[in-house]
Formats: sequence, structure tokens, C-alpha cells
Amino acid sequence: MSDKAQIQEAIKTQGEVVRKLKTEKASKEQIDEEVAKLLELKAQLGGDEGKHQFTLKTAKGTRDYNPKQMAIREKVFNTIIGCFKRHGAETIDTPVFELKETLTGKYGEDSKLIYDLKDQGGELLSLRYDLTVPFARYLAMNKISNIKRYHIAKVYRRDNPAMTRGRYREFYQCDFDIAGQYDPMIPDAECLKIVHEILSELELGDFRIKVNDRRILDGMFAVCGVPDDKFRTICSTVDKLDKMSWEDVRSEMVKEKGLSEEAADQIGQYVSMQGGKDLAERLLQDAKMSQSKQACAGLTDMKLLFSYLELFQVTDKVVFDLSLARGLDYYTGVIYEAILTQNGPAPEAGEKGEEGVSVGSVAGGGRYDGLVGMFDPKGRKVPCVGVSIGIERVFSILEQKAEASAEKVRTTETQVMVASAQKNLLEERLKLTAELWNAGIKAEVMYKKNPKLLSQLQHCEDSGIPLVAILGEQELKDGVVKLRDVHSREEADVLRAELVEEIKKRIADV
Amino acid sequence: MSDKAQIQEAIKTQGEVVRKLKTEKASKEQIDEEVAKLLELKAQLGGDEGKHQFTLKTAKGTRDYNPKQMAIREKVFNTIIGCFKRHGAETIDTPVFELKETLTGKYGEDSKLIYDLKDQGGELLSLRYDLTVPFARYLAMNKISNIKRYHIAKVYRRDNPAMTRGRYREFYQCDFDIAGQYDPMIPDAECLKIVHEILSELELGDFRIKVNDRRILDGMFAVCGVPDDKFRTICSTVDKLDKMSWEDVRSEMVKEKGLSEEAADQIGQYVSMQGGKDLAERLLQDAKMSQSKQACAGLTDMKLLFSYLELFQVTDKVVFDLSLARGLDYYTGVIYEAILTQNGPAPEAGEKGEEGVSVGSVAGGGRYDGLVGMFDPKGRKVPCVGVSIGIERVFSILEQKAEASAEKVRTTETQVMVASAQKNLLEERLKLTAELWNAGIKAEVMYKKNPKLLSQLQHCEDSGIPLVAILGEQELKDGVVKLRDVHSREEADVLRAELVEEIKKRIADV
Repeated sequence: MSDKAQIQEAIKTQGEVVRKLKTEKASKEQIDEEVAKLLELKAQLGGDEGKHQFTLKTAKGTRDYNPKQMAIREKVFNTIIGCFKRHGAETIDTPVFELKETLTGKYGEDSKLIYDLKDQGGELLSLRYDLTVPFARYLAMNKISNIKRYHIAKVYRRDNPAMTRGRYREFYQCDFDIAGQYDPMIPDAECLKIVHEILSELELGDFRIKVNDRRILDGMFAVCGVPDDKFRTICSTVDKLDKMSWEDVRSEMVKEKGLSEEAADQIGQYVSMQGGKDLAERLLQDAKMSQSKQACAGLTDMKLLFSYLELFQVTDKVVFDLSLARGLDYYTGVIYEAILTQNGPAPEAGEKGEEGVSVGSVAGGGRYDGLVGMFDPKGRKVPCVGVSIGIERVFSILEQKAEASAEKVRTTETQVMVASAQKNLLEERLKLTAELWNAGIKAEVMYKKNPKLLSQLQHCEDSGIPLVAILGEQELKDGVVKLRDVHSREEADVLRAELVEEIKKRIADV
Repeated sequence: MSDKAQIQEAIKTQGEVVRKLKTEKASKEQIDEEVAKLLELKAQLGGDEGKHQFTLKTAKGTRDYNPKQMAIREKVFNTIIGCFKRHGAETIDTPVFELKETLTGKYGEDSKLIYDLKDQGGELLSLRYDLTVPFARYLAMNKISNIKRYHIAKVYRRDNPAMTRGRYREFYQCDFDIAGQYDPMIPDAECLKIVHEILSELELGDFRIKVNDRRILDGMFAVCGVPDDKFRTICSTVDKLDKMSWEDVRSEMVKEKGLSEEAADQIGQYVSMQGGKDLAERLLQDAKMSQSKQACAGLTDMKLLFSYLELFQVTDKVVFDLSLARGLDYYTGVIYEAILTQNGPAPEAGEKGEEGVSVGSVAGGGRYDGLVGMFDPKGRKVPCVGVSIGIERVFSILEQKAEASAEKVRTTETQVMVASAQKNLLEERLKLTAELWNAGIKAEVMYKKNPKLLSQLQHCEDSGIPLVAILGEQELKDGVVKLRDVHSREEADVLRAELVEEIKKRIADV
């Protein structure tokens, strides 16, 4: 069979697959995927058969941002960046792809979700999976031993998307990290202060920040009789406590993971504990817990952390919670996670968001003192602590809020529309518009020779432009411009020479 | 041979390749690439041999941005976005990858430079090559028939990088486009006005904006006797006139592309022409040129364009230049390109920057009325005109400027450092710092229990922090803070209750 005949055969088969799915009323996503394959085959044939047969869609799990969404995004970023800058952070950027080997061995079993680039000759590349590993690579590569930096950029995961819930394959991360050898818990406390500031400023409703420490967890597992080689797997079962009952978690530990009932019950007692500094103090006196050096180190630091959080006045929202485990392997000390306690739909059963966090989670992070050493040729360590704001979830909430609100989201910042009521004034409109642009005024003009005044005013109403500068024969003769307030519909003649000042004054008054 | 033995064999061979390159003093890039392959093989082996053997580098043709570069980047983006917003533009964002078929057939022979993603099941994806094609896809997909939008994002080309000259495989594009059916040349003139504003504001030195029209080029080819099927190839030879002599261009046309000598000489006469509105008027009277309907349409629009450019007061920098051709296939009308006329190293012989533009070029664009129709199922057209700022070249120039300048680039915006001269005041420092943060002051504090005053002051000098708030036992007793001006070294006691106001006043004064 010729190549062409083979492709035609494949098109026929694939066409049947699509028809079958449609008959069976398969999910839109599934059908779209098979249709994409069909069109790809047709495109291979070339000629008219493939022409104009584009699937007009974005890749699975991704989306465009329209101007309204961008306006919201800009506002959120300004708040977050404002906070990062208030805390003296610098910013860096890294490429969207890294050498594949840079990412290898950093994400445990999640590595299967990494996007690889096609081998087109040269290096093997993968899209970044988070901003933390590229940050560690950057520190090791440039031999940087201390920095406070933020990084806001998109990351990529071939995960099962749940887009209505703000879970995408391409999504933003907003990371703030402090690298360097410092006295204990001071940078850690600042990270929590930052989460508190950002979530308060974004007005997402009430929230809580859970805190724990990997050393406390490991110490707890040890004193409860969990065998060393089961720490990680038991830890990941504990991590499910935010969406499974204790009974189910216990059953998974005992039946699936082969833990003794006694050990499981002892863990059960600890992971139900929540508190603050007092709890850390009590556990330091706990007969069992105090046997673990690791646990004691973690608990002593937890006490210290809370004393700093008191100075930062954020203890109202922070809870020491022994059930918090978090997924990623690289954490070595304090870990935390912020959740919204009202607002938005409840997480679906069994659903997990980024970094193994329930989707109610809007921020998370912790200390990872070993990661940079994995990149350094001499294994030289740079202690790090950081936080990542789960911004997509925030976007979703604020988009829903904007939809529900009567207030219109402006997508431009235009201050004045240069208009005319009469014909043949295009040149005069363009001239005045250029004058305003040159004076730093945000101005628009219609790209029509003779637009109707009504359509010019309508555009202002639609896009929220507050002022209109109207030109007519009479105004030109008198050396004035009619300045109209779109909202009040009041009009006043303003001397041409004073127009810029008058517009600036009006805008400042708004 | 076992898998392991095979890999070990491959490692041996690859090791020899690397050693040979090193002996031959091959380029660093070439060696790095082969070393990467070697390490990849070692990583496959696993075990200790692969451990800590990371190549600490970014992918070929990409780079990290350090905080200083980011500070420059932020400033440049603020200028450019400020201009786009002054002209009433909205912004959108699209995913970094598109369905492969979306990009297919849009870039002619440059398609070989597209990065593909590995087929990991599901859709076939490619990294975006520019922002124009995703924009056209966005318009068609959302049935948008008019919009004025900007889009600033990274694009990807597997091109030969020349990084010292600002040419990368991952680089930013800053695009501004106007889509919609409007009266002729008004949006086109605004695009040129925008280029003029941005290049003036960025203070990159003197510049010139060349303008031409695809219809004038095509008409010119027709009347000079170029056969229809040779328009594109002759056009691409003409495009080389900015770095080849006319003799060489003529020779390529005649010897390589088989054009008659007579036709080539006629083209030679036209492409040496430069001027303004007057040149357009003269060519409209030209015996030969006036025979082409296409050329006349282009020339009439060129006249109109210049009349609008006069109103916008930008004709000082704009030249109608018949030798300007530009590479991309999708242009249908006016085309333009801005070049810096001083400043920076001259382009290397034969070197071309993005979109087939010589690296002296810092902006380019044109009208593309057919692209959206390629995506629309019904072929419905949306006329578009736009401009792309060649921002990487701008970064390079401004980075060099910053290097050469005595003035330090600040990478943070911290306004005040909270310090102490005595021991045991960490808690007091943290408390005051939180007070300042809560009042919106950008403040830093050292993460040490007892830092030396000198090292606290040194940090301010290093990172350009203008103020220090110093706490001591006496100040705490007196309810004051010692506010020190880092530059003048003057100190003054300020009442704690008045500290925030005083800092704000001092900052505003700077």
C-alpha cells in the first residue's frame, strides 16, 4: 500500500472511532482528542482535504486569558508582587524548559507528569514542573549562598485537568523563597507572615494556615513504631486526612500498608492534635514523643516559630496541626499550607490540587535544606524556605466574584475619547489625540472618517472611558474643546491650551 | 550484551567523543552538548556513577535572568506597557504550546525551527513560534472581529543562537495589534506612532522606521517583468539588501534565481529609492509603476499613511523605502521595520535576527488581512495590523549601558532596614518590622539574633536601601527610633508613633 493509501486507511479507521464516541455520547474532551488525531491525519494528506479543518481549540488543560481575566490577573499579581517587594525580595526568571536530567529524581512518582520535548537533535529537554527545582539549579549553578527572591511564572504538569475548579496543565506559580544560613525560624516566620498578608489583602474570605514539621512527623512515626522504610508511605496516607475520615486512613495504613494496629492507633492519637505554642510545649513533655531527638528538635523550633509569629501578629490564623504532611519529598523541616475556610465550592471527594494539596488550599510551602546540595558538584548545602501561592484557585474565586458583581471590570485604562459630532474632522481628531498621547494622557480615537457621535459615546459607556473630548467647527474656531463627563453627561468648554491639565485634574478627582 | 553493558559501552564511546572535542578545542557549546549526552547515559545507569553529575546549565540558547537583568526588564516592560495602555489597548494571554496543526503552514520554511513536544499520548503539541498566529487562532476561535490588544510573552525557535547579540531560542515578543474593519491606514499609522513613542522613551539613540507595502513590491515585480511564480523568491532576495550590496543581490537574482538581467536592473532602479509622501506621489505618476493596479493601491495608501504620520508628528523618523521586503508570508499590505542608526555593535555579516530582520532592527510589523481567515471555518476575514518590539535587542543594549554606567541598578525597593546596635533585640526588631510592613512600608530585617551594626549598614550600602531605623535600649525606653539616612549618615530620633509618617515623607523627598 502506498503511504497515501495507508494514511487514507488510517483516516477511515479514526473516523469510525470518532463516530462511535459520538454515538456513545462520550465526554467532549475524549471526542475532541480523537477528532484532533483525525485532523492531524488529514493534514498529513495535505491538499484540500486538510484545509480549513483546524480544530479551533487550545491544548488540553490549557486556556486563553481574555482581557477581563487579564485585568483580574494583573490586579492579583500587583497585590502579590507588592507584598513580595515590601519584604525586600528580588526577582529572577528561568527558561520554561530545563535539561531533562535537571528534573530527574526530584518529584518522586509525579515525574510521570512531566512534559518532555521531542528529541529534535541536541539536548533532551523537559518543561519545568515547578519553580523550586529551577531555583535550586540556579543557586547551585551561580554559587549563590543567600538570596530572597520571588518568581512568578507558568509551570507544566500532564495531570488530569479540572478546569472549572482552577486546575490546569499550564498554570501559574507565585513563589517566594529565602535561601541562606540564618538563625532558626526567622525566615520561616516571614514566609508565614507573607501568606497572611497576601490572603488578607486579596479578600478571599477567612483562612487558616496549618503548620507542622517533617522532623515532628518522622519522630512521631518512629516513637509509634512505624518501621523506617515505611515513613514515606505512611506519611502520604496521613496526608489524606483532609479528605478521608480517620477510620479510612487507619484502614489504609493497616490493611494496605501492613502497619500494626497498635502503631496506627498511636498515630491516630497524635494526628488529631491541633494547637499553638502550648501544644508544642506539651508534646515536648510527652513521654513518648520526647524520646525522639528529631521530634524534640522540630518541637523546639515550632515553639520558637510561634514566638516570632506572635511578634508578627499572625497567630490568629496559624494552627500547629500534626495531621499536615504535604506531598513533596524535598521538605526537611517546617511545612505549611493555607486553606480558605469559607468561599467557593467544596473539594470533590478524593480530588487533590497541585503538590498533593486539597483544592481548598491556596498556599503551601516549607523548608528544603537539601535540594540545592543535590545540584552542587561538591554537595554544598544552601538551606532554603519558601512559599508558593496557589494563584489559579485565587483567579477562579475572583473571576466568579466579578461575574456575580454588578460592577464592570475595565479592561483598558483609557481616560479620554477624542470625538466629533460633525463630518470631516478626522484630521483634527488625530491631531488632538497625538497631543494627548504626547502629554501622557491615555486616549482613544475611532478609526473611522466620520463616526457617529452616538457610537463614540456608546464605546465610552461600554468600556468605561470617563471623559470625551469633543471637537466641532465652532470649538476649533474658538480654540476650545468640549469636555464631556460620560457619567454625569455634563459638558464644559475648555481652552485647548488647558485641556491636558483639566483632564489630569478630572482623572485625579475620580 | 545486557542493557547495562550496552549503556556502559555507549558511555565509553561518548567519553571518547568528549575527549576528542576537548583536544581539538571545539566550541564550549559543542562540548557542553556532548557532555550532556554523556551524563544522560550515566544517569541511565543509575547508582553512584550518575550521582551529582548534573550538567549545571540552562538549555542551549536560553538563559536565566538575574535580579539586575530583571530590574532592567521590569523598567523596559513598564515603558512599553505604559505606551500600549496610553493607546487604549487591552491584553490577552495564550498558552505556551498550541496544537501542532495550528502552527502548520504559517511560517513557510521557518517551520523547521518549531519546537515540538514529545508524543506522550493525546494531542500533538508545539511551542509557539510567535504571538501573531496564536492571536489569529484566538480571534477565530472566539469570533472576535475587533480588538486592540497587546501581548508580551516568550516565544521559541530552534534557531542558531547568538546570545551575546541578544538572539536566543527562548525570547520575549512584545506585540501590539489592531484587528477590525476600519477606514484605511488609521490603525496602521497608530502602530508607527507607537514604535516612535517607545523607541524615543527607551532612549536607545537615534532610529529610523522604514515603511513599504507588499502591494507596491508585488506591483513593482510585475511591471519589471518578474514572472508571477518568482515573486516570493525574488522578494526574499530583495530582503537581503540591508546587508548585501546591490551587485550581490543582482547576481543572486540573475544567476541563482534565473531572472532576466533587464528585469533585475529595473528592480535595481526602484529599490534604491527612498523618500516620503513625495516619493509615493512621484511613483503614482511613474509610467511603468502606474500600470500596476496593485502598486497604485499601495502608493495611494502610502500617501494617506504619510498624511496621518504628519498629524502624529513622526515623519522625522519614517522613510518610505522600496527595498524593505520582510520575511514572513502573511503580510498583505503596509510593512515596516525600525532600526537603530547608532549604538551597539554592527550586525555580523549575513546575520539575521528574528523574523528575517537584521539584528540592528528593534521593531517590525505590518498588515496581515488574511491570517485570521485561515483559521475561520468559513474563511471569514478579520483585517489586522500590528507591530512587534524586538525586546531582547533592547535588553542587550540597556544591560550594556548599565554595565558601563557608574550608577548602580537597584534590585529591591526596600525603603528601610530595621537594625540594632546592641544584642538581644531581635524580638524588638521583628516587632517594629511588622509594624512597618503593616503600614505598607518596604522594610527588611536581618535574620540573625545579634547581627553587627556594621554588617547591617553594609547591607544597606550594597543594596541601596536609603534609610535605617535603629533600635537600642535607650530608644526603647524613650519611645523613639533613631532614623539614619544611609547616604548623608545623618541620624535623628523620631517618635515611634510618628515613624511611619516620617519614613513616607523622607521617601517622597528622594
